[in-house]
Amino acid sequence: MYSLQFTSRSSSNGMVERDFTVGGVPGVLWSPASGADRAPLVLMGHGGGNHKKHPAMAGRARLLVTGCGFHVACIDAPGHGDRPRTAHDEEEIAALYAARAAGEPEGPIVVRYNAHLAELAVPEWRATLDALQELAEIGTDGPVGYWGINMGTAIGIPFVATEPRVTAAVFGQHWPHVLAEHAQRITVPVEFDMQWDDEHISREEGLALFDAFASKEKSLHVNSGRHKELPRFEAESGVRFFARHLGGAAGRS
Amino acid sequence: MYSLQFTSRSSSNGMVERDFTVGGVPGVLWSPASGADRAPLVLMGHGGGNHKKHPAMAGRARLLVTGCGFHVACIDAPGHGDRPRTAHDEEEIAALYAARAAGEPEGPIVVRYNAHLAELAVPEWRATLDALQELAEIGTDGPVGYWGINMGTAIGIPFVATEPRVTAAVFGQHWPHVLAEHAQRITVPVEFDMQWDDEHISREEGLALFDAFASKEKSLHVNSGRHKELPRFEAESGVRFFARHLGGAAGRS
Repeated sequence: MYSLQFTSRSSSNGMVERDFTVGGVPGVLWSPASGADRAPLVLMGHGGGNHKKHPAMAGRARLLVTGCGFHVACIDAPGHGDRPRTAHDEEEIAALYAARAAGEPEGPIVVRYNAHLAELAVPEWRATLDALQELAEIGTDGPVGYWGINMGTAIGIPFVATEPRVTAAVFGQHWPHVLAEHAQRITVPVEFDMQWDDEHISREEGLALFDAFASKEKSLHVNSGRHKELPRFEAESGVRFFARHLGGAAGRS
Repeated sequence: MYSLQFTSRSSSNGMVERDFTVGGVPGVLWSPASGADRAPLVLMGHGGGNHKKHPAMAGRARLLVTGCGFHVACIDAPGHGDRPRTAHDEEEIAALYAARAAGEPEGPIVVRYNAHLAELAVPEWRATLDALQELAEIGTDGPVGYWGINMGTAIGIPFVATEPRVTAAVFGQHWPHVLAEHAQRITVPVEFDMQWDDEHISREEGLALFDAFASKEKSLHVNSGRHKELPRFEAESGVRFFARHLGGAAGRS
């Protein structure tokens, strides 16, 4: 088992940010400046081409930390952020750009590349969760959520399907081809986002992935607009979802 | 034009409740105990078999009044609440109960009966809105929303389609057969609720009605569960929707 090494610490407006590594994988842990003991933990998976401190991650983290009093952790996916790209990463990214330039569908490339990354990333997430739960301020008793859209869903669905410590998850915006089979093993509450006018993922594909979850309690949020136009208010909705399911200040209000 | 006659007044916990009639139609107006001047107005349509002060209406009203500082008005639909049933009402209700008892689909009866009620109710809503806007504390300048699920949608969609004063609406849980044509004329922001396991309204029917709205900005909230299991947190979501679109305290937070 890898232990967690903190490499830097800063704080602003009631939120402490600590960079860390677990077995060479770089991550960040955001925590409340006070009252963080044994608070719930939300794991966040970033989108393709982004990284652990992308503004979408930091923004959601601030809502969860200062609004709910939760811990939030995010790690760089393989080939992303502070991690090196392999020759295979470069080939797949080149294939994606070539498809875009040719006006060909991105789906087949994203589905296969993200499935490859998920195989690498799922054990990394498990090791990260093991190490985070060794920290006194988190511990092994508290509830754990997972939140990832796009590539964060491609990695998160296989992770949550095999990780009983995660008790609630927000996913969205991916294809059912590889993921529906994993989703059929997920029974925890799920909130799922899709775009009604997504130019990459058809309505049928988005609905099929939502339908695949075995969860007794699941919610689908569809919004008008294209792939990249997921409305900001869905971030607030995700925060309320975790407040309801993991507890915390916002859940009690 | 009918004027509005107040018939009673009470107040509790920061909310004033006033019963009224407009042209013989009984209604209720809920307002903030203070700071109500020229506040936004939300019109609420109740569900079939219910009435203007059903707990679902009073509960949503309290969230909007005390959380957002809005006025909220609800009127009894024809044949509902304090209004007499006609022989036609009795026949349609008997037909509905007979279909239920026989295990036959309710949809065709509900669709046709609600369409009949909407023809009567749309002019009543228009007269009510006219009269409400004559009140000094509401006025003609403020934003107006409409919120109705089930029968409240069957009446609300034709109303909003022909009423430019309504600038945002929450609908849900009805069939597309009569309503999709009206929905195609609605361009204001819409939030729409449907149940994924609705035993009366199929997924295809629910999605078709959502798809019909011409609104540039529209959101669909699908939840697991049967027709009557619409989760309570969708009431809070509707409140946030109106706070975003009509302004008010919750929209500024």
